[in-house]
Amino acid sequence: MRIVVALGGNALARRGEPMTADHLRANVRATCVALAGLAREHELVITHGNGPQVGLLALQNLAYSDVAAYPLDILGAETQGMIGYVVQQELTNALAGEREVAAVLTTTEVDERDPAFDRPTKLIGPTYSAQDAAEAAAEYRWTIARDGQAFRRVVPSPAPIRVVQADLVRLLLDHGRLVVCVGGGGVPVRVSAGGVQTGMQAVVDKDLASAALTADLGADLLVMLTDGDYVSQDWGTPLQRDILTATPEAIAEIPFAEGSMQPKVDAAVRVAKAGGRALIGPLDRLDDLLARRVGTEVTADVPGGIVFA
Amino acid sequence: MRIVVALGGNALARRGEPMTADHLRANVRATCVALAGLAREHELVITHGNGPQVGLLALQNLAYSDVAAYPLDILGAETQGMIGYVVQQELTNALAGEREVAAVLTTTEVDERDPAFDRPTKLIGPTYSAQDAAEAAAEYRWTIARDGQAFRRVVPSPAPIRVVQADLVRLLLDHGRLVVCVGGGGVPVRVSAGGVQTGMQAVVDKDLASAALTADLGADLLVMLTDGDYVSQDWGTPLQRDILTATPEAIAEIPFAEGSMQPKVDAAVRVAKAGGRALIGPLDRLDDLLARRVGTEVTADVPGGIVFA
Repeated sequence: MRIVVALGGNALARRGEPMTADHLRANVRATCVALAGLAREHELVITHGNGPQVGLLALQNLAYSDVAAYPLDILGAETQGMIGYVVQQELTNALAGEREVAAVLTTTEVDERDPAFDRPTKLIGPTYSAQDAAEAAAEYRWTIARDGQAFRRVVPSPAPIRVVQADLVRLLLDHGRLVVCVGGGGVPVRVSAGGVQTGMQAVVDKDLASAALTADLGADLLVMLTDGDYVSQDWGTPLQRDILTATPEAIAEIPFAEGSMQPKVDAAVRVAKAGGRALIGPLDRLDDLLARRVGTEVTADVPGGIVFA
Repeated sequence: MRIVVALGGNALARRGEPMTADHLRANVRATCVALAGLAREHELVITHGNGPQVGLLALQNLAYSDVAAYPLDILGAETQGMIGYVVQQELTNALAGEREVAAVLTTTEVDERDPAFDRPTKLIGPTYSAQDAAEAAAEYRWTIARDGQAFRRVVPSPAPIRVVQADLVRLLLDHGRLVVCVGGGGVPVRVSAGGVQTGMQAVVDKDLASAALTADLGADLLVMLTDGDYVSQDWGTPLQRDILTATPEAIAEIPFAEGSMQPKVDAAVRVAKAGGRALIGPLDRLDDLLARRVGTEVTADVPGGIVFA
C-alpha cells in the first residue's frame, strides 16, 4: 500500500515539556520506532506539523535584535530542515538502514485571495498569560487567540491547493524511498499567472496539505496521528459519541472544533472523496488503529453512513 | 554534462551587509539568474555554504534564554531548510518553471576520530571585536580565531568521507531534476559499525563535501564559485602569480591559506584525481570562467603541470 502518515504535534513535542532539542529527538525516536513496522512493509510518506517549532524560531528571531526577524515562510523552511533531519535520521536508525529515507523541502500552493489571510486561526508557538499575550500583541503586532486556559499567537492558515512537489514525492516512492516532506504543511506559496512562486506569511494546516498530497499521489491511505482515541460527536459533553467509521458525507454534517479536529475531518473527507481511506487515531496505539480496534475511519462505503464505537 | 556548482559565502551574503532575509533573497536571486543558463543545459547539482547563517542561528538561540540552545547538527539542518528553500524557489523562478528543482536534506559521513575535532578551524557567524570575542569565549565556551582584522567563532571541520545521500542525488539527476543539497557541507554524522547515524557538533567544509559528491556521482565538473578571479601562488605578495590550469600533483605542492583557499584546492585535487575537472573562479564572471577566460582549472592533463595566467 501507498500510505501517508501525518504526525501531530505530540509526535514531536509533548504539551508542557520544554521545547529542547533533546526532547524533540527523544519524541521523534519513539515515533519512528512505532512507525518502523509500517515503513518496512509499505510505500510510506511521513508529513509533520511545525506549530510549536516555528513559534520557537520566531521568538529566537525576535530575541536577537541585531538582525531583523526572518519572515514566516523562511522560518517554516527552517523547521522543515530541523524536523526533517531528525525524522530522517531516527527513521533510518529505526530501520537499521534497510530503506533509504529521503527528506525533501516542499512548498504548498495557496490562493492569495483566500479569506484566511484576513482571519488568522492557526495557533503557533508557546502559550502566554493574558498579560504577556497583550504585550506581545502590542509589541510585535501579533494576533492573539485563546488556547484552553492560556493564550497563543495565531497566523493565517489558507487552504492548500496542491503540494507543488507531488511528482517528486511520487518519483521517490516509485524508486523505493521513504519520504519525509510537507513539514508544517509545506511552505505556502502563491503561483502567479506567469508561474513565479512567492512565499506567503502563513502556515498551512499539515493535515489538509497531507490530504492534498494523498489525493494527488493516488495513495491508498492517510493516517493522521494524534493523542485522542476517536473523533467524537459532541466531544466533552454528556452526549459524546465516538465515531468508528463514517462516510465523508455523514461526517461532514457534524461540527467539530475549528483549528483542532475540524481540519483533520476536512482532510479525511477530501481523501475519502478522492477514493482513498483516512484514519484518525492515537500514535501510541498505531497497531490497534490500523487493525481498526481504535480510532476513526472515513471511507466511501459505510452501511448507514456512520458507525459509532 | 553532469556538473556540481558549489556556491561560496558571497553568493548568499555579502561581507559587511546585514544578514537579513531580504539580502539573502536578493543575493540568491542574482546567483540563480546567473546560473540559469547552466541549469537549462546540464544536469546540475547546487551546493552551498552556511557559515554566516549557522552562526546567526546560534546567536538567535543564545539570545532566547527560555529554551536551551540547539546543537550544531540541528542548526545546520535548519540552514539547509532556510537556504535550500530560497535557492529552490529562486532557481525555479529564474528557469520559469522549465525544470523541477529538488531541495533535499543531506548528511555527510565523518570519522569521529578525525583530529579536526580537537582543533577547531571553521569560521562561523559574524565578526566580533577583540573584547566581544573574549567575552563570548568565556560565556559560551566558544573557540575564537582571527579573521582579517576581526575575530570569529571557530568549530571543528572534519574531512568528509561521503555524502550519505549520493545515490538519492543520482536518482534525481537521472530523472531530470536539478538538485539543491549538501547545504553547509551537509550535516556531519558518524556511522557506527551497526549502521546507526549520529549527528556531530561540527561543520564540514562545503567545497570538500561537494568534491566527495562530485567523485561519487562520477560528475564531469565541480565549479567552486568565489569572489576572487584566480587561485594564486604567493597571494597578496609581490611574487603573486595567478594559476590558470594545473594538475592535481602540481597544485598540491603549493601552500594556500588554510580555512579559505586550501579547502578549495584540496577539493579540486580530489575531483581531478577521480578523473573529473574542477574550476575555481568568480561568480560574477561565470560565463568567462566556463569559457576559461578567468579562474583556475585543476585537471589531469596539463603540459608542464602548471600554467599561469
